[in-house]
Amino acid sequence: MSTTFSYEHLYNFAKNIFLAIGCSETDAGTATRSLLSADLRGIDSHGVARLSGYIRLWEVQRVNAKPGIKVIHETPSTAVIDGDKGLGLVVAPFAMQVAIDKARAVGTGWVSVKNSNHFGIAGHHAMMALEHDMIGIAMTNASALVAPTFSKERMLGTNPIAVAIPAGNEPAFVADFATTTAANGKLEILQRKNADAPTGWILTKEGEPSVDPGEIKAGGLLLPLGGDREHGSHKGYALGAIVDIFSAILSGANYGPWVPPFPAYLPIPENMPGEGIGHFFGVMRIDAFRKADAFKEHMDKWITRFRQARTIAGQEKVIIPGDPEREMELERMQNGIPLLPAVAADLEALSIKFKVAF
Amino acid sequence: MSTTFSYEHLYNFAKNIFLAIGCSETDAGTATRSLLSADLRGIDSHGVARLSGYIRLWEVQRVNAKPGIKVIHETPSTAVIDGDKGLGLVVAPFAMQVAIDKARAVGTGWVSVKNSNHFGIAGHHAMMALEHDMIGIAMTNASALVAPTFSKERMLGTNPIAVAIPAGNEPAFVADFATTTAANGKLEILQRKNADAPTGWILTKEGEPSVDPGEIKAGGLLLPLGGDREHGSHKGYALGAIVDIFSAILSGANYGPWVPPFPAYLPIPENMPGEGIGHFFGVMRIDAFRKADAFKEHMDKWITRFRQARTIAGQEKVIIPGDPEREMELERMQNGIPLLPAVAADLEALSIKFKVAF
Repeated sequence: MSTTFSYEHLYNFAKNIFLAIGCSETDAGTATRSLLSADLRGIDSHGVARLSGYIRLWEVQRVNAKPGIKVIHETPSTAVIDGDKGLGLVVAPFAMQVAIDKARAVGTGWVSVKNSNHFGIAGHHAMMALEHDMIGIAMTNASALVAPTFSKERMLGTNPIAVAIPAGNEPAFVADFATTTAANGKLEILQRKNADAPTGWILTKEGEPSVDPGEIKAGGLLLPLGGDREHGSHKGYALGAIVDIFSAILSGANYGPWVPPFPAYLPIPENMPGEGIGHFFGVMRIDAFRKADAFKEHMDKWITRFRQARTIAGQEKVIIPGDPEREMELERMQNGIPLLPAVAADLEALSIKFKVAF
Repeated sequence: MSTTFSYEHLYNFAKNIFLAIGCSETDAGTATRSLLSADLRGIDSHGVARLSGYIRLWEVQRVNAKPGIKVIHETPSTAVIDGDKGLGLVVAPFAMQVAIDKARAVGTGWVSVKNSNHFGIAGHHAMMALEHDMIGIAMTNASALVAPTFSKERMLGTNPIAVAIPAGNEPAFVADFATTTAANGKLEILQRKNADAPTGWILTKEGEPSVDPGEIKAGGLLLPLGGDREHGSHKGYALGAIVDIFSAILSGANYGPWVPPFPAYLPIPENMPGEGIGHFFGVMRIDAFRKADAFKEHMDKWITRFRQARTIAGQEKVIIPGDPEREMELERMQNGIPLLPAVAADLEALSIKFKVAF
């Protein structure tokens, strides 16, 4: 049984919580939009369900509510940003704006970020580019949970990649995916339902295949996209590694097993080689390549043709990346966002603690 | 039983064949290095085994041996190149050089290419950036063979992505992979051996799972990385789609089911919306983000730490992307390149046809 709340209701509450910890008016709005974009798009694991988690990071002084986010190195098409321990929900839109400005000036902009925190869903940031007739790319590293091919040690995060590409009459192409067979959020859902996971998602901490989503809390591991070597897990591992290197080694953030965890109660790794977690953003102006109208016309043709692709038995249609999330967003903007009782209770507790009406 | 040939022997032969069809001295050398890099790195499906295929494309006038490759649109960090139907083996290094020059000037360079042909292995082109202390990225679309999630229609090529990242004392990180569970070359090998493929690689043309690598010639399909929806095939499909869009819709090449096939005897698709096949290249100068020495020191730490990751039972070590190919290259440079009898016979036939000693 879940209770449904309007976007506006959750927006006002979350924004007031961010104001209560000391965020500026602007930052509180930015953080709330980043956070709630996950709820709207149906990625419930990354939305208000995590609000209390961000606040706990502030309580242990791992999140700075008043960061001095700044560009510390740049060229005409690149920048490195120090997030000053800010909320990734705020640092990421700042970095995307820098990338958009550079793309406007010289065709593309590429920004690597250190000293940040969890940034919500990658797709939200990538989509900032769309209204400017630009392609947006967003990725981030995350604390280690994933076994490289042949390994049983947590070495990489779920390290998502998002790419948003404008179209004309068709809606934009928006891919946003963890570089693992399944995102951690899906395992959390299975755990709540007490259901098994498919084979090929999980290893026990001894490196044996498992279908028990509870293994993750017991020291188990997620598998890279591909699952095993025979099905291309070395490719998922390489993708996760590329995200890690672009996000953290280009910027000076932590990488691999040294990325600090999101839950504030977990210890941070020893001898961290960098600062905070890292992100990487890219923006390409369409008309730096060809006229935006011509590009969009061909994107429409691409999308229309793929929608018409012949389907296997039992399947109605081929999905264009971003379709399900866009439909969910329309539906939830209109009818509200359902929250599980545990999530609503979590928000109630924040309401009492910070004397903010819920 | 295969026969082994020295790199030098194959280099001289292939170069003389390219000269015989009218390539310039420079282009013949460039094409040969691109082609043989596949044999050296152990990707036998993409090396001299395809030389006669390239020549057949020239015979039917789909490859222009004397292309006027040119930049047709550019900004400080981007370019679109018209390959003028040239060998992709020549067009791709030209485009990478443009990207490198732009990265030198403004930090990064991004080049989309139309009107090209098959470019060999993506990794060879991406690696051009390494000696300049730059990160290199190369991708290409290819004729349709892959079913998007839920589909049984050939809509995407195996659309590979390569990323080459310099390190310090450690060798470079070089990932180069098809965005499918298995590259087509692996199926060709299984077919020659009359062996089954693992489940999750192939669909019949009716969209049923199959383990028969012969299905591909009978109209069957390859599956995107992930295999099925439950294991993330929508992510592999999205990756293949992104490669297609960056390579072809940014440049004006053909895309999706309209990409012309490599075998010259196959008909080209009707109503093609663009010109030739498309590639996409990116180059990022390391010191456009941070000092190259600091970056390389951390790359060495990343690589060393991943090499030390604990392994599952039966596995000796975690592999860094590029390790097996680099070891193969050293071995084959020293001991020669083994060719199957059918491949050697194919080269003999070229030798006779073009009166070039083999």
